[in-house]
Amino acid sequence: MTNQKKPSRNLTMLTDFYEITMSNGYFSNGYRDTVVYFDMFFRHIPDDGGFAIMAGVQQLIDYIKDLEFTDDDIAYLESTHMFQKEFLEYLRNFQFACDVWAIPEGTPIFPGEPIVTVRGPVIQAQLIETMLLLTINHQSMIATKANRIVRAAQGRAVMEFGSRRAQGADGAIYGARAAYIGGCCGTACTICAPDFGVPALGTMAHSWVQLFDSELDAFRAYAREYPSNCTLLVDTFNVLKSGVPNAIKVFQEELLPRGYRPAGIRIDSGDITYLSRKARKMLDEAGFPDCKICASNSLDEYIIRDMLMQGAKVDSFGVGERLITSGSEPVFGGVYKLAGVEDANGNIIPKIKISENVAKITTPCFKGLWRLFDRDTGKAIADVVTLHDEVIDDSQPYEIFDPEHIWKRKMVTNFRAVKLRKKIFEHGQCIAEERTLEEIKRYCAEQVDTLWEEVTRFENPHQYYVDLSPALWDIKNRMIEENTALSQR
Amino acid sequence: MTNQKKPSRNLTMLTDFYEITMSNGYFSNGYRDTVVYFDMFFRHIPDDGGFAIMAGVQQLIDYIKDLEFTDDDIAYLESTHMFQKEFLEYLRNFQFACDVWAIPEGTPIFPGEPIVTVRGPVIQAQLIETMLLLTINHQSMIATKANRIVRAAQGRAVMEFGSRRAQGADGAIYGARAAYIGGCCGTACTICAPDFGVPALGTMAHSWVQLFDSELDAFRAYAREYPSNCTLLVDTFNVLKSGVPNAIKVFQEELLPRGYRPAGIRIDSGDITYLSRKARKMLDEAGFPDCKICASNSLDEYIIRDMLMQGAKVDSFGVGERLITSGSEPVFGGVYKLAGVEDANGNIIPKIKISENVAKITTPCFKGLWRLFDRDTGKAIADVVTLHDEVIDDSQPYEIFDPEHIWKRKMVTNFRAVKLRKKIFEHGQCIAEERTLEEIKRYCAEQVDTLWEEVTRFENPHQYYVDLSPALWDIKNRMIEENTALSQR
Repeated sequence: MTNQKKPSRNLTMLTDFYEITMSNGYFSNGYRDTVVYFDMFFRHIPDDGGFAIMAGVQQLIDYIKDLEFTDDDIAYLESTHMFQKEFLEYLRNFQFACDVWAIPEGTPIFPGEPIVTVRGPVIQAQLIETMLLLTINHQSMIATKANRIVRAAQGRAVMEFGSRRAQGADGAIYGARAAYIGGCCGTACTICAPDFGVPALGTMAHSWVQLFDSELDAFRAYAREYPSNCTLLVDTFNVLKSGVPNAIKVFQEELLPRGYRPAGIRIDSGDITYLSRKARKMLDEAGFPDCKICASNSLDEYIIRDMLMQGAKVDSFGVGERLITSGSEPVFGGVYKLAGVEDANGNIIPKIKISENVAKITTPCFKGLWRLFDRDTGKAIADVVTLHDEVIDDSQPYEIFDPEHIWKRKMVTNFRAVKLRKKIFEHGQCIAEERTLEEIKRYCAEQVDTLWEEVTRFENPHQYYVDLSPALWDIKNRMIEENTALSQR
Repeated sequence: MTNQKKPSRNLTMLTDFYEITMSNGYFSNGYRDTVVYFDMFFRHIPDDGGFAIMAGVQQLIDYIKDLEFTDDDIAYLESTHMFQKEFLEYLRNFQFACDVWAIPEGTPIFPGEPIVTVRGPVIQAQLIETMLLLTINHQSMIATKANRIVRAAQGRAVMEFGSRRAQGADGAIYGARAAYIGGCCGTACTICAPDFGVPALGTMAHSWVQLFDSELDAFRAYAREYPSNCTLLVDTFNVLKSGVPNAIKVFQEELLPRGYRPAGIRIDSGDITYLSRKARKMLDEAGFPDCKICASNSLDEYIIRDMLMQGAKVDSFGVGERLITSGSEPVFGGVYKLAGVEDANGNIIPKIKISENVAKITTPCFKGLWRLFDRDTGKAIADVVTLHDEVIDDSQPYEIFDPEHIWKRKMVTNFRAVKLRKKIFEHGQCIAEERTLEEIKRYCAEQVDTLWEEVTRFENPHQYYVDLSPALWDIKNRMIEENTALSQR
């Protein structure tokens, strides 16, 4: 039994129950083959940041490829006595047939733009809503948080250490994956190494030190076991009076004679800024200026920034619960809204959702999405949401304008216009380009580099432009006026 | 292929990498068969509440039963060149041999008490740390949050609607399970119905209303499809001017003539307190006082409490992201600490972790855990942590005292003493009693009822007593003194 690859789970039934009640209703009401357009977009950047990072697309692909209702699933649905036989037959023979476009993982994304678009039979587009949102909301949130923390660490390594506080096993596994995309250098979550190639890291817990008769014995045993990678946890009893002196003694007695240098020490409690400065001095004076200091214990981007500002002598950070749960803002509020419906002749009828809350009004139509980059600096100038068949010709000047304050206009010249989304499914077949996680991580770092500093600031960042093309803006405004007239306000 | 039960995942490798580096080191240092005692406990109740709810034990059991390293797992570990051959052979033939005690799911739990204890070979006790903490931290957090929200709703139904904002698929699935234990009446997450028997609920999204030519058409079609369970979403355009009037019209024209009564309406945006009162009046005047009003949209216990205080006419609540992520405090900080080691003669040597942060000092020894209930009222008086072989004789008065302020003493009489934890594994074999989720949910409600109101309050609850027996207190204090003397402060 042990020589088999472990099975993966099928998540077809991880869908909101109303997707199924609605689909059954579409089936009876002549909408079985109706083709619709749904967009995923989000309204707010976590932690009031200037941008988010797209992630989770690969898991959306995996989920869609695996879509399949088993006999057990159908039997359960049948037992509710809510669904017609023909509809259940349709599910039993489910064949995904949609087109899907998505912004590639690792790309900076902004509120209001369609980051995923699904075109296809309404029943299918509706069924995948829950997992589409779940996986992209989750991983984009963690990649975004990881990127903040990595930027706060100013070039120092950040390791993801949060599995034990993750919200479920997937929270740990896909959280570690997303954290790697966002810039972490590795994870404590072992399973991610064989599964995704994320480096698995870790040395010892306090229990190692406690189990031996003394801290010195524990350190000695560890140094003999892992001489080439000897990082010692120095805060089980007292960092400066016991941990660091014992570590230095063991480095001198166990490593040097055998030709090894120490890898590091880790401090997991107390005032790490103060302790790291004292420890640095002790290590330097003992002849170990190359011995790294690693800090852990409820860190996040704010604490790391403050520690470094106060001169903490830390070379790497192990970040746990506040990264793996995006502790300061644990929800990424992506939504999935109907934007259009094809009529019998294949014409796209735009659809809009009106709300008394203006920010909740959706942008109708099958849309395109462009990013304009300045040709000289390579920096991103603005994103433009267009009708799907509009082309932004970057050989000509292009006027962008703020869709909420239309008098704010700007003529852009000398730019490169790039389509932001890639088609990942065509008529239900996956056509996504395969990328390694390493490639995605590298691409993410490059793309974050295209943002102006004003956008990457933690506090009060500049709001990056996400504009509508004049044609799309006209349709949206006309529809808002028609709908509000309809409801007679 | 569709007639197979879907496979479950194996999570053996979801363990922190340091568990494996330490275990390999234990193996070389003569600790391969050393028997240790680890406790899981937590230090802080989320949202400054008065108690938490134990959950996730069943998934710990499932995980342990499935423990198995595949050839692929071993091959990966081998590829790191960090582990000895004999140790990898041990993993390949891994046979779980520990004893495990846990507080049953659904029980109120308090900081500082051992909610899970593991006794067994150190390598094994260490290996399961990550998933043990992960599953119990996650589900206890969600069950605790759900229970708060359910109590705020004062008898009204609360439905779990958060899958799309969950932190990974397990966040949705096991979150919904835990929410049900905590008192929710069902979930939108379909997969939980066949898997756990949690009722799956849901009717329609805004996309249903948008797809039809008009709101009225959409409502009509839904009423015809589901006449016996007709709940209409009334906020796609305008709740009071369009949604509710159209719903009333459809109830009158489609349901009444066919002998059905309406199930309800749902309001998902706007000022729900105001809108629900107006809608209630309109429904009552139209002859539908039995038509329920359901509210959703970023709710939690605080908003629900305020809505009800202001007279919102809401019969049930759909709660999403703030429940499924425990939004206001998304981390449950349970830890797993070494409490003792058996010597060659089977004597238990107590172990302690000292910290400059007093709250982080652990309680040593293999421990017992008792809850004292008042015989007259049935209310819980205090929990007492003892040495494992101490018995609290409830035919005699028993003096409890605060372990931090030992002058706070209280003589307890007329009480019933109950051992809080059950043994769930004996020498590696699962001996846990099987309980349905329904039973756990009912038990949870009963046990929360044993708490005094002072403890269940949202703001500034009374701190429930978790005391140490005098014998345990003596050992702990002696060890603190010895250790601080050792580090020469």
